[in-house]
Amino acid sequence: MPTNQPAIWSNVHYNPEAIAQFEQGISAYRILWAQVRHASNLVEVSADPKLADANIVFGQPEVAGAMAAENLRWIHLTTAGYTRFDTPEFRQFAKKRNLVLTTSSSIYSEPCAQHVVAYIFAQARLLGETFRIQLSERSWNSLPLRQRCTLLGGQRVLIYGFGAIAQRVVELLAPLQLDIIGVRRQPSGQESVKTITVADAETLIGEADIIVNLLPANADSNGFFNAERISKMKSTALFINIGRGATVDQAALHDALSRGKLAAAYLDVATPEPLPPENPLWTLSNCHITPHNAGGFSGEGQAIVQYFLENLRRFETGTPLADRVL
Amino acid sequence: MPTNQPAIWSNVHYNPEAIAQFEQGISAYRILWAQVRHASNLVEVSADPKLADANIVFGQPEVAGAMAAENLRWIHLTTAGYTRFDTPEFRQFAKKRNLVLTTSSSIYSEPCAQHVVAYIFAQARLLGETFRIQLSERSWNSLPLRQRCTLLGGQRVLIYGFGAIAQRVVELLAPLQLDIIGVRRQPSGQESVKTITVADAETLIGEADIIVNLLPANADSNGFFNAERISKMKSTALFINIGRGATVDQAALHDALSRGKLAAAYLDVATPEPLPPENPLWTLSNCHITPHNAGGFSGEGQAIVQYFLENLRRFETGTPLADRVL
Repeated sequence: MPTNQPAIWSNVHYNPEAIAQFEQGISAYRILWAQVRHASNLVEVSADPKLADANIVFGQPEVAGAMAAENLRWIHLTTAGYTRFDTPEFRQFAKKRNLVLTTSSSIYSEPCAQHVVAYIFAQARLLGETFRIQLSERSWNSLPLRQRCTLLGGQRVLIYGFGAIAQRVVELLAPLQLDIIGVRRQPSGQESVKTITVADAETLIGEADIIVNLLPANADSNGFFNAERISKMKSTALFINIGRGATVDQAALHDALSRGKLAAAYLDVATPEPLPPENPLWTLSNCHITPHNAGGFSGEGQAIVQYFLENLRRFETGTPLADRVL
Repeated sequence: MPTNQPAIWSNVHYNPEAIAQFEQGISAYRILWAQVRHASNLVEVSADPKLADANIVFGQPEVAGAMAAENLRWIHLTTAGYTRFDTPEFRQFAKKRNLVLTTSSSIYSEPCAQHVVAYIFAQARLLGETFRIQLSERSWNSLPLRQRCTLLGGQRVLIYGFGAIAQRVVELLAPLQLDIIGVRRQPSGQESVKTITVADAETLIGEADIIVNLLPANADSNGFFNAERISKMKSTALFINIGRGATVDQAALHDALSRGKLAAAYLDVATPEPLPPENPLWTLSNCHITPHNAGGFSGEGQAIVQYFLENLRRFETGTPLADRVL
């Protein structure tokens, strides 16, 4: 094998079909498999000596190791998020070295958006409550349940973090004719719904029926939904978080939910993860927690591999890459 | 009060705002309140002597009493279903007497359709399972859950009973680009999706990923989803029933679900209702039961009253009535 053959380093650990698809698609390259491979994207990554020899990365490399790899030209992350690389140091380094960073954001926008919509419908139809009834007293109190279900239509929805997931949420909810407003650091004016800055949203928080938190984790978003912002929410509001746990003050959220200052919360992310069984959020009947499975779906591994391979063909031909963030 | 003033009989029992709205809207009529009034549409109705004097009915009259009311010209039911009146005897009687029957179908199509969609999203994102986990071990097994979630898109959906609810289900699911086929006794050719007869659907049952049962209860539909039809379903299929409990052989359904011949069922209706706590369907982890609250929503009473009053204005001016079935 000629040593000038370019090398792709990877630490992914998908099912055999996905791995075979990957190996076949990169047959023109040397494969550098990491010593430790991860089926989950949600674990801490460790240094890997083979990374130093990589030209391309597919997976979740450790940042310092990636910065030390002298011939590295492109990193394709298997996540939508890129928190570990979203620092001034790495941005500067990537610019100086012409190092490209792409994510798999497009793959996760569909399942994440479907998860958000599932939450919204489940709350409107009180499915959490009827599931609980089925697991306990098995009563048939139709009338009070019927009167407490919410007809979706016309509610105001505030979506924080208006990227690909939010865009798809807007599409999926379109038939309900909700009043959806996006919130992002820098509205482009090209969003499919009215989109405003965080500052402009401060007064609107108190008018929202549904608040969807899709914020990525970074220095700006850390603890963004603090006690003050939560206290502005309507007592009938629904709060959804499938962004990152660190963006929410969980103690303040627990306080609001337990005192009836907020109707319900649906959380797919938490701090820490796993959220310990003794965390009091688990015990609230108006707080529904899913264990960070919003982005998942049957066939996820194959979809990510195929998405990377499509980007690899673009990389080879000098075509602009999909989901490029740096 | 002149005795020739027309009379409206009613046995509804809504909140004070809805009743005030009703009484104000029919101030030109005598009101004949039934001795027994019902907050729920789902109870057995009994004979009421005042019905004999009615010109118009708003509520749920007893059939024999309605047929004995000599000056009755119009019955507006507060339900979408009209099973008790869907008999050859009553049809013939209504025709002979020019008695008009309307339902509140349009009011219930939206919440019922939203309930169906809530079921579909909940199953795709495994919300029943995560709710159960929250109520028990509070584990955080992201990876296996992620891999078992289903990405909605492209699935084949068969909807039995293609009326107003089905039409709205089609609209709500449109952004997912599913392959939806309607099934009804007599396709009109005007449906918004391909719609076929029950006979033509027999071979397609085995190809459906999601089967939605919206059949009304009548002689044709009694026990329609019997052991044979259930056995044709894919083992990965989802079966939804928000029509009427009598349309399903529950023993056969339990058998299929418990043997893994059918992936999951979501039922809002059952036989009998209330479904007794000891019924084995309650105990299946892949059978989710909601206590006939699919049509309900906050503001239901006011919405029904307003709908009746709009129809009353049409009745007074000879305009065709909404949701007329006879």
